[in-house]
Amino acid sequence: MPDKIGPNSRGVYIISVTPFTDDGDVDWPSVDSLVEFYLGKGVSGVTILGMMGEAQKLSDTESAEFAKYFIERVGGRVPVVVGVSHAGTDNLVRLSKTAMEAGAAGVMVAPAAGLRTDVQVRDYFAALFKRLGPDIPVCFQDYPLGTGVNISVPAFLQMVDEHPSLVMFKHEDWPGLRKLQQVRRGCDGTARRRISILCGNGGLYLPQELHRGADGAMTGFAYPEMLVQVCEKFFAGRADEAEDMFDSYLPLVRHEQQIGVGLAIRKEILRRRGAIASAAVRAPGPRLDRDDIAELDRLMERLERRLAAAAKRSPGIAA
Amino acid sequence: MPDKIGPNSRGVYIISVTPFTDDGDVDWPSVDSLVEFYLGKGVSGVTILGMMGEAQKLSDTESAEFAKYFIERVGGRVPVVVGVSHAGTDNLVRLSKTAMEAGAAGVMVAPAAGLRTDVQVRDYFAALFKRLGPDIPVCFQDYPLGTGVNISVPAFLQMVDEHPSLVMFKHEDWPGLRKLQQVRRGCDGTARRRISILCGNGGLYLPQELHRGADGAMTGFAYPEMLVQVCEKFFAGRADEAEDMFDSYLPLVRHEQQIGVGLAIRKEILRRRGAIASAAVRAPGPRLDRDDIAELDRLMERLERRLAAAAKRSPGIAA
Amino acid sequence: MPDKIGPNSRGVYIISVTPFTDDGDVDWPSVDSLVEFYLGKGVSGVTILGMMGEAQKLSDTESAEFAKYFIERVGGRVPVVVGVSHAGTDNLVRLSKTAMEAGAAGVMVAPAAGLRTDVQVRDYFAALFKRLGPDIPVCFQDYPLGTGVNISVPAFLQMVDEHPSLVMFKHEDWPGLRKLQQVRRGCDGTARRRISILCGNGGLYLPQELHRGADGAMTGFAYPEMLVQVCEKFFAGRADEAEDMFDSYLPLVRHEQQIGVGLAIRKEILRRRGAIASAAVRAPGPRLDRDDIAELDRLMERLERRLAAAAKRSPGIAA
Amino acid sequence: MPDKIGPNSRGVYIISVTPFTDDGDVDWPSVDSLVEFYLGKGVSGVTILGMMGEAQKLSDTESAEFAKYFIERVGGRVPVVVGVSHAGTDNLVRLSKTAMEAGAAGVMVAPAAGLRTDVQVRDYFAALFKRLGPDIPVCFQDYPLGTGVNISVPAFLQMVDEHPSLVMFKHEDWPGLRKLQQVRRGCDGTARRRISILCGNGGLYLPQELHRGADGAMTGFAYPEMLVQVCEKFFAGRADEAEDMFDSYLPLVRHEQQIGVGLAIRKEILRRRGAIASAAVRAPGPRLDRDDIAELDRLMERLERRLAAAAKRSPGIAA
Repeated sequence: MPDKIGPNSRGVYIISVTPFTDDGDVDWPSVDSLVEFYLGKGVSGVTILGMMGEAQKLSDTESAEFAKYFIERVGGRVPVVVGVSHAGTDNLVRLSKTAMEAGAAGVMVAPAAGLRTDVQVRDYFAALFKRLGPDIPVCFQDYPLGTGVNISVPAFLQMVDEHPSLVMFKHEDWPGLRKLQQVRRGCDGTARRRISILCGNGGLYLPQELHRGADGAMTGFAYPEMLVQVCEKFFAGRADEAEDMFDSYLPLVRHEQQIGVGLAIRKEILRRRGAIASAAVRAPGPRLDRDDIAELDRLMERLERRLAAAAKRSPGIAA
Repeated sequence: MPDKIGPNSRGVYIISVTPFTDDGDVDWPSVDSLVEFYLGKGVSGVTILGMMGEAQKLSDTESAEFAKYFIERVGGRVPVVVGVSHAGTDNLVRLSKTAMEAGAAGVMVAPAAGLRTDVQVRDYFAALFKRLGPDIPVCFQDYPLGTGVNISVPAFLQMVDEHPSLVMFKHEDWPGLRKLQQVRRGCDGTARRRISILCGNGGLYLPQELHRGADGAMTGFAYPEMLVQVCEKFFAGRADEAEDMFDSYLPLVRHEQQIGVGLAIRKEILRRRGAIASAAVRAPGPRLDRDDIAELDRLMERLERRLAAAAKRSPGIAA
Repeated sequence: MPDKIGPNSRGVYIISVTPFTDDGDVDWPSVDSLVEFYLGKGVSGVTILGMMGEAQKLSDTESAEFAKYFIERVGGRVPVVVGVSHAGTDNLVRLSKTAMEAGAAGVMVAPAAGLRTDVQVRDYFAALFKRLGPDIPVCFQDYPLGTGVNISVPAFLQMVDEHPSLVMFKHEDWPGLRKLQQVRRGCDGTARRRISILCGNGGLYLPQELHRGADGAMTGFAYPEMLVQVCEKFFAGRADEAEDMFDSYLPLVRHEQQIGVGLAIRKEILRRRGAIASAAVRAPGPRLDRDDIAELDRLMERLERRLAAAAKRSPGIAA
Repeated sequence: MPDKIGPNSRGVYIISVTPFTDDGDVDWPSVDSLVEFYLGKGVSGVTILGMMGEAQKLSDTESAEFAKYFIERVGGRVPVVVGVSHAGTDNLVRLSKTAMEAGAAGVMVAPAAGLRTDVQVRDYFAALFKRLGPDIPVCFQDYPLGTGVNISVPAFLQMVDEHPSLVMFKHEDWPGLRKLQQVRRGCDGTARRRISILCGNGGLYLPQELHRGADGAMTGFAYPEMLVQVCEKFFAGRADEAEDMFDSYLPLVRHEQQIGVGLAIRKEILRRRGAIASAAVRAPGPRLDRDDIAELDRLMERLERRLAAAAKRSPGIAA
């Protein structure tokens, strides 16, 4: 069993999609292949049941089953974080406990929709940490564009002071580069205990985020090997090389970063790459039409050409 | 078994709270007493698992159990409508079928959060009606303040034309008196087939809404007898008398109409009136503090005094 | 010249409408009559160019002219507060200075749209207070439903500590009774220097707000005499009598409290009462149709009947 | 004098910044240099007083002066479109007329904040077109992320049918590629009269948008020559070459596309390139700190290196 997530977690925690059959059922065999796909690309961890994992469209029973099955298939090779956000605290706590018992490395929680001030967010999490107890490591997901909830840096730092099991900050405020850096400086092990900071938002600003102190990425992208290598190169001191690689994929990073339809695009690429059997998104959800498909064809071809050219110039840059 | 809801449904469909114990479990004995309380006040129907029923904080299993239990306790004395809104269509359809099999009179659906235009709302419901089939009567809940989703009158009327099982409009746009009247005129049995229109928003504008063509109320208020009598008097041609009664309760109607804390107030009144054993709201949820309680004491005393005075002036006006 | 607003300001600061001709020009003669109308009803102050004063639809030149003219007509009989909120700080500061030079008693500022956290709101106001200097008394307008901006109580109290010219809190968060009380306790002259708290939201919860420590109302309502007498009675220790009077008008208070169309209703009542010549709202703005007018007729007739009956029961309760 | 904008307008209409001195005054000499900068890069037109032109922070007088001065400096070399959106219709109409008299080629209007349905948007524009008359060509700005207002494609097409002076669609819904294409197909000169479609959103998806039928871009980017050449190459049938060039700049396009701080970045690049004297953004507005500057240094260096390398590989690809 791998360690739980903690202040020194780093690298790429890929946000996993949830594979469905064309009929909308969970596609268990595709979970198997998807796990091997992600692990084969060298990710440091996996996060399941995030927003891009369509968690809100699963039933509670499905969520619990999916978490257990996924964790079992990973089999301790890397840590698995489970998204547990829910409108009701009881359900959130229940899924957290189920996941941890099944071997999860921690849980990810976004503040509940409707919280409007720093004080409300802190009160919400104070109640939550009390219910979760001291043994479940928590990743705070800061995603105002998705949740409508904002928290200021000082309020977040207060939460770090108050709750020892808050060990990770999933940064995806946008724009948020300055916020990320302020959290980093506030939690650098000197000003205050260290926490891990991983970045979301599809990785759209990953090189900038690494320069500003991120420990890696916790996001989905259909080419996880890029995220992995960018982080590895960066932490090996080869920042420019890392960013060259990143820029090669940027057109597709940006293409996936279209809220809504982006998930359908991501799943279609994963399908083409053999990671899952169907690109189906559960209803209500977007479907790619002929124009979307032609557009994606062009973008993928362009990527392949670019990677081939780069490989020719400096062998090794392509995965 | 009572009829399903239909174009001629009228009167008061009380939005039921979901009773919890102080520990946050569903309080089944209180369901029994609550059912008798509501029916004893003369309601024409009951709607369960609405937003004020904390539906979003129940697990899927709890929702199904609650619906079945509640419907069984009502035992066909009045129709029961079940709120089935869910981020995932499958879950929505599953709960709808469970509820109908258990004897529900219809389901209530609000457009899913994130829909942004008339076309998107119509597409969403077109897919939904296809999945639900022709035999499940649907009440459309128009509650932009809660859902963030708006629909224009012409778009709603198009939906009425396209989906015969759309039989009821729960009006709670705010402000929305003109919209209500436009829907009424558009669905009056002549311009187009009739649909039933019941009003929400805690009943804050009920007399105005009745004048504009509403068939009654589908809302929660801790004194359902007021809603019932206001509707009865109005439909008996005694509009002014109905409004006099309404105005007597208006200070409390307005007091309950505070989003968030209003639900805690409503449950506390229901507890005092013996309808449920505990006023607990599931976490995360508001709790009344000493000041809130003192304030409520004053308002309830004032109501009692006012009702007593009215009874003295014209015996019969108080319930 | 009356004193500037300060920590002990109390009573009713009526939010003035801006009178227009049917063609949409500022109707200067109606400003004259409106000033006399408000003052004749016994208000303690007037606030102009608020959101219900259609400030955002005036040109900058018109705003400055309107402020100067209005202040001149009031002629020092009561303090005049000027709403100066603007997307650009320069414009805000310019209008503030113009207004103060013309004899305003202070300015009212709401946080600019788009501010998302306590820290951002505090930073915004820190910059503002620096620009305004120490001599312009400021009323902070807390109106999240209108601005989309929220501030927590501790953050507001910090602002009180940091900015001596912040002397008044216009409470109109909703629901917000608990927040009002927390601000009151935090600024009671002991825990911290006193500030004045006046309530908005059309006065919908005025009796409750007075019980919780408000110093009065800063809101619009077409029957200002009610607001005035409710405050007077309450501060004279006759809280129940005050609330009886309030409840008589509550159906109309509620009717005006319909965002958007409510302003057209308020202007129509003011027109009927002779305060202004035209009920016109500047485009884009709501217009009452035949149904709205008939509805208003009924509500006003009912109010007159109720006041007459009350006057008969206890002479003196009606204005 | 150049033609007014019309159904066949195409190419790049650069969204101009508004130059300020460090003290926040309009920097008139920088307007001169900025005009020459933009025109020197080959733009087909210029749009002033858009959201990225800080229009909402100018006084009405400043807006009118700025429009007149800017149009005079351009001196008919390219068309100038003026953003006229305002909360009040009178102000909007007044600025429109002032601008057209000064020689503007058309006006750009976004639906007013607060409009909630297709019908409301259409009613708003119907009233507007009536006031503007038939001779002022209008560009509809579809920017829901900024305005909070959404319109569906059928509703927009209805507006095209009803208002002949609606000649241009500024597409910046996000994600919105499919919407753009639907508008294109609906207004292709066959299904319905043609309108021009130019794309905003900082150009983040420009190659995709051109493939889907856009006529060019109406957006700001500190390297207008890239936008110009991408459009030229694309319309010359060299789509892949166009996209290669685009991709070279994509890291900076994405960097500028950070709402809020992005404007400060854009102005800083324009300052470095000699287009304006100061990068100042009017208060309240973002300021770059040391970290932001260092980050921008890196990104600009990387761009230069990439352009140099591309120039070496295929001379001519760099501007």
